[in-house]
Amino acid sequence: MNLNQQYLTLTENYLFSTINHKVAQYQQKHADTKIIRLGIGDVTKPLAPAIIEALHEAVAEQGQESQFHGYGPEQGYDFLRQAIQEHYQKNYSVALAIDEIFVSDGAKSDLGNVLDLFSVDNVVLIPDPVYPVYVDTNKMAGRSIVYLTGNRENHFLPMPDHNMTADIIYLCSPNNPTGAVYNREQLKAWVDFARQKEAIILFDSAYEAFIDDPALPRSIFEIEGSKECAIEFCSLSKTAGFTGTRCGYTIVPKALIRNEQSLNQWWLRRQTTKFNGVSYIVQKGAAAVFTPQGQQQIKADIAYYQENARLITNCLDELSIYYTGGIQSPYIWLECPVAMDSWAFFDYLLTKAQIVGTPGAGFGQSGERYFRLSAFGKRDDIMEAIARLKKIWQ
Amino acid sequence: MNLNQQYLTLTENYLFSTINHKVAQYQQKHADTKIIRLGIGDVTKPLAPAIIEALHEAVAEQGQESQFHGYGPEQGYDFLRQAIQEHYQKNYSVALAIDEIFVSDGAKSDLGNVLDLFSVDNVVLIPDPVYPVYVDTNKMAGRSIVYLTGNRENHFLPMPDHNMTADIIYLCSPNNPTGAVYNREQLKAWVDFARQKEAIILFDSAYEAFIDDPALPRSIFEIEGSKECAIEFCSLSKTAGFTGTRCGYTIVPKALIRNEQSLNQWWLRRQTTKFNGVSYIVQKGAAAVFTPQGQQQIKADIAYYQENARLITNCLDELSIYYTGGIQSPYIWLECPVAMDSWAFFDYLLTKAQIVGTPGAGFGQSGERYFRLSAFGKRDDIMEAIARLKKIWQ
Repeated sequence: MNLNQQYLTLTENYLFSTINHKVAQYQQKHADTKIIRLGIGDVTKPLAPAIIEALHEAVAEQGQESQFHGYGPEQGYDFLRQAIQEHYQKNYSVALAIDEIFVSDGAKSDLGNVLDLFSVDNVVLIPDPVYPVYVDTNKMAGRSIVYLTGNRENHFLPMPDHNMTADIIYLCSPNNPTGAVYNREQLKAWVDFARQKEAIILFDSAYEAFIDDPALPRSIFEIEGSKECAIEFCSLSKTAGFTGTRCGYTIVPKALIRNEQSLNQWWLRRQTTKFNGVSYIVQKGAAAVFTPQGQQQIKADIAYYQENARLITNCLDELSIYYTGGIQSPYIWLECPVAMDSWAFFDYLLTKAQIVGTPGAGFGQSGERYFRLSAFGKRDDIMEAIARLKKIWQ
Repeated sequence: MNLNQQYLTLTENYLFSTINHKVAQYQQKHADTKIIRLGIGDVTKPLAPAIIEALHEAVAEQGQESQFHGYGPEQGYDFLRQAIQEHYQKNYSVALAIDEIFVSDGAKSDLGNVLDLFSVDNVVLIPDPVYPVYVDTNKMAGRSIVYLTGNRENHFLPMPDHNMTADIIYLCSPNNPTGAVYNREQLKAWVDFARQKEAIILFDSAYEAFIDDPALPRSIFEIEGSKECAIEFCSLSKTAGFTGTRCGYTIVPKALIRNEQSLNQWWLRRQTTKFNGVSYIVQKGAAAVFTPQGQQQIKADIAYYQENARLITNCLDELSIYYTGGIQSPYIWLECPVAMDSWAFFDYLLTKAQIVGTPGAGFGQSGERYFRLSAFGKRDDIMEAIARLKKIWQ
């Protein structure tokens, strides 16, 4: 019996455990100090009332024999798929067939699981810095990875180079961790590149709800030709506070054909074999996100986080600190002071201002001199963090 | 770009779609006839009151900023892992460390996902007939499969043969579809075999709650030496009616070492990379299953299904039909009449008695002459089905 030896190539990511350890140690020595946590990208607002109401109703149904729901379709209930379909039509002018929409328990699961469909000899193109899951899930399968550098010159929005080999391409826009957003022309260039290479783009749109500039694409399917080369992964985690409630959706267009096979059919086959669907209760809650009332309520929450981001970026502007994100994104990606790498800056911020952020090194080599702040905190904490930043940055 | 060519080796399983098609066609021609469905293994009783109450409480928490839960631990909340730990100690006298317990969204996901940890050159040993997911998930990865025949001679409880090669062994007890249950001596023989071969047993105990004979093992960890060779997959689907609510648990002992690596650590790594945990709300509901009140309520539901099974097996006894299961299991696996294979018998039962069951052929070659009935129906339907069976079997 042999284990999958590729697991041995994984480098243990101690990012958040190291952060927690350092913070705990500091707190122990300074018990009275209030530490402000702008590190992990987790929401702080509770679920909106329309969602709570739908969840309670679904729970009540599960307690009644006449309304009880057992096994549901692995790909999700039609009531939710239809709501997502209408959402795409209304907000992005994107027409989807209902069976192009697969309900998931979040983008993270499907971003990893989709790799089941691909040969291990494919070459993977991954922007750096990036959400570490793209890298680790491909290492687990033993695929070669080519990194594409994001930096100040390209505003952390790397573009394709036609000399590159690429079979699978990850794009995340708005990006985690940089908050940078591709515009239509840039995404079109990626779509053209993918089609020319016959590659597949795995498009992570988990932060799309933070885009409020109508000129910027929120779905890759707003781009012509994308249905022939892209799969989109979205989540309600940041859109509607579902980080602990768990629901998302994956769009696999029927026009996506490789090796004469329909990726849509293959994903259906994968999901019916290895997944048993998302909880009925959670799907009812998710459907409430797309009602007029639900939309109004979640938009108010997003506006709150956006205002947090605006306050932070205003502060960085005042201090003349370079950053990306903040606008159209809950993340602010700032350059560390000249003499510090991202871990040194982490220690500096923790000890001098009692602010916790995330060192850019945790997102790849190109993040070594950058730092991520999250706007998901509470307003008072954000204001206090800003005041402390201004104080130490003089 | 190449797809995973192993998907082409999958034979499309039309089992339930063919059943649905045949039933719909029959119903269309006989609109007034009541068809009784004893096919799919889905529960019919609603969630127990203690679970509903816990779910409502958790929903309410998700609506309050002060009680809101965002990202939880990928491996599950300690309140649920602790409840499972105590359950194993109290009911099976099995001592588990809390970090040997991983909360899942059901056994199906983890039974497939665990294969990520193993090399594709491992040989897989699978009993036939069996839950088709074991076969398909391994075909997707391209592993060689050796089938072990279950039949009337071995009471559908095949035993190991020391001449066989085996790296990964699937055992399901009580078995789906046969309802047969391994006793302690038999499971001990499997554990000894696995340890001698340095194989790993993937033990699917999804139906363990139906065992009420204290002489029969409900967890493989009741067997000496099993922690060095087994992973257990359990689910609340059949235990507590969670088929549509989605929660289960996977036990990976720390004593399970292969290639000098801890499988427990590897599974943790897999889950933290490719999974984001089960919904907080669902985990709160799951924890209520293990309270005294929850246990009392779910046991009443199981007793109801058990009585259904007893009524069906009494009828089969009267008609002198050979079967396995029914006792200690919600499934009854009966031999088809001499001149019929399982699909012919399906048609016969549908047209003569308007009863829907599942043809054994859907579970593998050794099921060709057998048929599965499920005891998860409503009592009136079970009684009516029994009356119809008796009428046509004269």
